[in-house]
Amino acid sequence: MKFVHDPHHDGSPDHVGVEDGRARLRVRVPGGADAVYARVVEDGEAVMLPADPVRTAGDVVWFEAAVPQRPVVTDYRFAIVRGNRYTWLDQEGAHGHEVTDAGDFRLITGPQPPAWVAGTSVYQVFPDRFARDDDSVGPPAEHPDWALPRSWDDEPAGFGETAAREYFGGTLDGVRRRLDHLAGLGVEVVYLTPVFPARSTHRYDASTFSEVDPLLGGDRALRALARAAHERGMRVMGDLTTNHTGDAHEWFVTAREDPGSAEAGFYLFTDHPDGYVSWMGVPSLPKLDYSSAELRRRVYGADDSVLVDWLTGPDPLDGWRVDVANMTGRHGAQDLNREVSGEIAARMREVDAQRGGDGSWLLAEHFHDAGPDTHHDGWHGVMNYAGFTRPVWTWLNTAPEGVRYMRTDSPLPRTGAEEAVRAMRATNAGLPWRVLTHSVNALSTHDSARFRSVVGDAGRQRVGVAAQVTLPGVPFLFAGDEIGLEGLDGENARRPMPWHRPETWDRETLDAHTRLLSLRRELPALQTGGLRWLDAGPHHMTFLRTLGGQVVLVHLADGPHETLSAACADLDVSVVEVLLRGGRASARTDGKVELDADGPGYVIVVGR
Amino acid sequence: MKFVHDPHHDGSPDHVGVEDGRARLRVRVPGGADAVYARVVEDGEAVMLPADPVRTAGDVVWFEAAVPQRPVVTDYRFAIVRGNRYTWLDQEGAHGHEVTDAGDFRLITGPQPPAWVAGTSVYQVFPDRFARDDDSVGPPAEHPDWALPRSWDDEPAGFGETAAREYFGGTLDGVRRRLDHLAGLGVEVVYLTPVFPARSTHRYDASTFSEVDPLLGGDRALRALARAAHERGMRVMGDLTTNHTGDAHEWFVTAREDPGSAEAGFYLFTDHPDGYVSWMGVPSLPKLDYSSAELRRRVYGADDSVLVDWLTGPDPLDGWRVDVANMTGRHGAQDLNREVSGEIAARMREVDAQRGGDGSWLLAEHFHDAGPDTHHDGWHGVMNYAGFTRPVWTWLNTAPEGVRYMRTDSPLPRTGAEEAVRAMRATNAGLPWRVLTHSVNALSTHDSARFRSVVGDAGRQRVGVAAQVTLPGVPFLFAGDEIGLEGLDGENARRPMPWHRPETWDRETLDAHTRLLSLRRELPALQTGGLRWLDAGPHHMTFLRTLGGQVVLVHLADGPHETLSAACADLDVSVVEVLLRGGRASARTDGKVELDADGPGYVIVVGR
Repeated sequence: MKFVHDPHHDGSPDHVGVEDGRARLRVRVPGGADAVYARVVEDGEAVMLPADPVRTAGDVVWFEAAVPQRPVVTDYRFAIVRGNRYTWLDQEGAHGHEVTDAGDFRLITGPQPPAWVAGTSVYQVFPDRFARDDDSVGPPAEHPDWALPRSWDDEPAGFGETAAREYFGGTLDGVRRRLDHLAGLGVEVVYLTPVFPARSTHRYDASTFSEVDPLLGGDRALRALARAAHERGMRVMGDLTTNHTGDAHEWFVTAREDPGSAEAGFYLFTDHPDGYVSWMGVPSLPKLDYSSAELRRRVYGADDSVLVDWLTGPDPLDGWRVDVANMTGRHGAQDLNREVSGEIAARMREVDAQRGGDGSWLLAEHFHDAGPDTHHDGWHGVMNYAGFTRPVWTWLNTAPEGVRYMRTDSPLPRTGAEEAVRAMRATNAGLPWRVLTHSVNALSTHDSARFRSVVGDAGRQRVGVAAQVTLPGVPFLFAGDEIGLEGLDGENARRPMPWHRPETWDRETLDAHTRLLSLRRELPALQTGGLRWLDAGPHHMTFLRTLGGQVVLVHLADGPHETLSAACADLDVSVVEVLLRGGRASARTDGKVELDADGPGYVIVVGR
Repeated sequence: MKFVHDPHHDGSPDHVGVEDGRARLRVRVPGGADAVYARVVEDGEAVMLPADPVRTAGDVVWFEAAVPQRPVVTDYRFAIVRGNRYTWLDQEGAHGHEVTDAGDFRLITGPQPPAWVAGTSVYQVFPDRFARDDDSVGPPAEHPDWALPRSWDDEPAGFGETAAREYFGGTLDGVRRRLDHLAGLGVEVVYLTPVFPARSTHRYDASTFSEVDPLLGGDRALRALARAAHERGMRVMGDLTTNHTGDAHEWFVTAREDPGSAEAGFYLFTDHPDGYVSWMGVPSLPKLDYSSAELRRRVYGADDSVLVDWLTGPDPLDGWRVDVANMTGRHGAQDLNREVSGEIAARMREVDAQRGGDGSWLLAEHFHDAGPDTHHDGWHGVMNYAGFTRPVWTWLNTAPEGVRYMRTDSPLPRTGAEEAVRAMRATNAGLPWRVLTHSVNALSTHDSARFRSVVGDAGRQRVGVAAQVTLPGVPFLFAGDEIGLEGLDGENARRPMPWHRPETWDRETLDAHTRLLSLRRELPALQTGGLRWLDAGPHHMTFLRTLGGQVVLVHLADGPHETLSAACADLDVSVVEVLLRGGRASARTDGKVELDADGPGYVIVVGR
C-alpha cells in the first residue's frame, strides 16, 4: 500500500492549533485540490466549512480551515474536491467513497492531560515477581495460609487453579533496590499492579484499599519507593480496581452482613447475601455498582477516597492505571462508564491543582475497541491492545506451539505488515489524537504471553520494540521483556527477574531497548509528532513522525522486500542521517534514501 | 466487486430468530470454515461465543450461535476462522483485517415498531402544491397578507427570498379528491408536510400546533382526509417539528412577553426577548429546549400534547415524520436527542395500545450518518438520505447544469455503481436491520432537486425507482415523481401536480412505478427479506433479497457490462422466472441466469 499521495491530517501541533475557541485545522494535500472543506457536525447537523490554501511546497498544497470548537469534542473530517469527485479524509485515512462519522477526527477541548505523559515511558512491575528485599532465592519461609511459596528460580504455572496463589516474595523495597536498572534502561514511570492486601499474588481481589499489603512492605514501602523514584525524576503509578473488589473486601463483608448498610448498595446483589454479580462470573470478584453515590464518594469523591488518598500526602502516586476500565459502571441496561470516568478525571484535576503538581495520569485498561469510551473528557488514554499490541502480534508472531496470546482462546491470526497497518489505522481511527498520545503501546503485559515467546526470537522482538517507541503512544514494557524473558500465557509470563543469573540476560535486546528509548527521549517528533504513513507491504511498514522542522523516517521490516525509494523522496530534506539501525534492515542515504531488508530489522532516519 | 464467496448475515428472519431472551444468529459461509464465533460485548467486555454448523447446502455451510440478548441493543459480529486467519463479518460485510465495533450488527430488543411499516410505501404531499378544492388554475383570489398568489401552472422560484411565500392554493380536500390517483399508483401512506398555520407555504414555522391551517381546510379537512384514506386501507402521516417552532408561535409569543412564563423555558434565550438560538441561525425558527419538562409534556407527554392529539380521536394520523430529528434536543454540550426520541417512541406505543390500533410510525429526518442516533429504542427509522438517496444519486446523476442537489452547496460526485454500493454498505452498516427496514428510500423530497432532473432522462430515473422498491427500506415518492416532474432545487422542485394537463405526464414512468410498487407488494422478500450483495461494477449492481424459500434476484444497470452469470449460479434454484424487466437490461434464464445491459435498465428475477 502506498500512502505518499494521500492527503494527510492528524491531531499533532503541525496540523491543529487552537486559539480563542477556534481550531485551525491544516491539511496536507499532495497534488492540490479544487476545493477543500472541513465537515463538522453542529448540534446534530453536518456543515461544510471551506478551507483555504495557505502554503505550497513543491506539488503539496496545505489548506487551512477555521472551525469553531464544540463543547467537549469537535468531530471533523475533510472533503478534498477534484472535479466532480471528492475524497473523504478522516482519522483512518483517505476514502474514495462515503463514510460514516465513526472515523472522524476528534478534538477534545477543555483541560488537557498532564504534559509529561506523551514523552514518558512505562515499566510494569508485578510486585510479587520483580525483586525481593534481599538476595535470597529459596522459597519464602513466612507466607500467608493461601500462598504457595516458590523459589525465585521456579517457573510460574500457566493458567490454572494454583497460578494466583504462587508466592515468590517480591516486595516494594525490592523494587526500590532495583531502580538503578530502570534508570539505566531509561524508563520513567514504574507502574505497579495492585499493592493492596488480598488472597492472591495478583491482588485484584483486594480486601481493603486503605493500606498497602504488609507482605509488600506496607504503606511505608510504597511511600519510600515513590520518594526514591521522585528523587531520580521517575514516577510511580498505581492500579485501581474500579470494577470490583475481592469478596474478602471490608466493604463486601459489611454488605453481606448488613443488607441495610451503605455498603450493601455498593454491589449488585441478586439474592442477598450469596447471590451477586461478579467480574466474568468469578465469585471472588464482586462487581461494584456506581449508582451508589456513597460508593463514588469512597472510590474517588472524598478526600480520603481510594483515588485521592494515594495521590496526596508525602510522596504520592503520579497516576492510576484503571483495571477493567472497559467494564466499570456497566451492567445490563446500566451504563455509567462515561459518567464515572469523567468524574474521576475531573477529581484528579482538582487534586493535581491542590497539590500544585504537574498532573497525574489516568490510564484505562481496554482490551478491544476503546474508541467510543474515549470520546469525552474522561480516561486520558488506554492500554491500546486493539490498536497496537494485537496488530503488531498479528504481523510478527510465528504461531509458536503452546503460546496463548491473551486470557481468552480467541484466535490470533498471522498476517503481514500491510494488514497490521490497516488494522492500526482502522482501530486507532476511533481514538482522538489526544487519547492516542496518552495511551500505551505494550508488547507484553501481565495478562499476555511474553512478546518474545510470541515472536520466537530476538530479531523479531526488536522490530516490535522499534514499533513500540516510534509509533504514537507511550512505550510500555513488562519488566523482563528487556532481557528477553519468555512466557507462554498471562500467568506463566509472570516470571521473576533473574537478578542473580545475569548470564541468562539477552544483552543485545537490553541494549536495543536502551538505545531506542533514549532516541525517543531525544526526538520530540517521536513523542508528540504527527504520524504519516508512507508505505506498507507483506514484510515492511514505513512511516514519518513530524513535528515542526523535525522529520523522522521509520522503517520496520521482518523480511525481504523491494527497495523503497519513492516513499523516501517525500522526506522533503536534503540532508538525512541514519540515527539507528538494527537487525537486517538497511538504508542508503546519498542524496536520497533507499530502504532494504533481508530479514527482521529497523532503520530510523532523521532529516536535519 | 464480487461478493458471492463472502460469508453473509443480516437481521432478516432467515438469519435471526429470538426466543426466551436468546437470539439464534445464523451465518451463511460459502466454503465452510474451521470455526465460527459470534463476538458480542457484555457489560463492556468482548466475548467470543462459538457457532455450530447446522446445515450444509452444496459448498455452503450455515453456522448458528445462540447469543443472550442484551438489554435494548445486542451488538455482534462474526469471526470466520480458517487456519491461522480469520475474517470479520459485520453489517458492512466481510473484512480481512481488524475492525472497530462501529459496523457491528445490532439487534434491538423490546417492543417492535408497527408490523405494517416494512411492507408499505409512502407518497409525500406538499399540501400547497398537490391539489386544490376545485379545478381552478388561476391565482387564488383570497390569500393571507404574507402570501404571493400563484397560478397552478406557474413554476415555483428556486432558492431565494420569495420561495416560501409563493401560494398556489392546494388544500387537504384537494388531496382527498385525488386519492384515486394514489390508489392506482399503489402507494399506501400519504405523508403530509406540515399542516399547521404559519406564514409560509412550507409551514415549518408553525404559529400553533393546536389546529390545522384554515387555508388547508382546517381540522375538518385533515380528519376527512384521514377517514377517506382509512376507508381505502390507506394511512396518513403528519410532520412534527420537534426542533423548533415559528417565531409567531403562541408559545414563543408568550415566552417573549413573559420571561417568567413556562414557555420562556421552552426556548434558548441568549438575551431575552430578542436574542435566542434558532434553526441554523434563521430567526423565524426559534429552537426548542428539551430540558424543560413542561415542553416535553406539551409536545408529547400530555394527553392533549401535539403528538398525542393527532394520533387519537376520530380518524387519527398513523404516524409522524419528525422534522430535523437529527438536531432535536441538541445544543452545544446538551444532547437530549436519545432521551427525547426514546420518550416519544414509548409515548406512541402507549397511545397505540390505548387506541387498539396496529401501531403508528415514527420516522426521523436525517441528512447524514444516522446510525449512532438509532442504536436504541427510539426513532423507528430514518429518511435514509445518506444510505440510499445520496449513493443512488452519485451513481445515476449526469451532473446536469443548474441542478442543486440538496439545500447546501456541498459537492455531489459522479461515481459508478460500484462506489455507490460501497457507500451503501458503509453507511447502512450503522443502521440496525430493524431501523433500515423501517426507514425510507427517497429519490426526491421537498428538500431536494427532483430525481428526474438529477439523472436527466426517464430511463435512468426508472433504474432509481427499481432500486427504491427492491433495496431494504420503504419506497418514498415525492408527489409528481411518478409522472416525471422536474425541479432544479428544493424550492423549484415543489411544482404543482398538473392534473389538468395529462398530456404532460410521462406515462411510461408512471407505469414503471405502478408495476414496481405492485411487485413489491406481491413479494414478501422485497419487504422484509435479507439483502445479499452478489456483484457490482462501474455500470451495474446485483443483489438478492431472500425470505424463507423466496429468492429474488435484482439487477440494476446504467450501461454495458460483461455478461454476468457466475453470480446467478448462486440463486440456488432450478426454475427461475423474469418477473419484470425495464429499459435496456436483459436476462436469459435457460437453466442458468445470464444478465446483460447495453444501457439503463433493470431485471427482477424470482426463483420458484
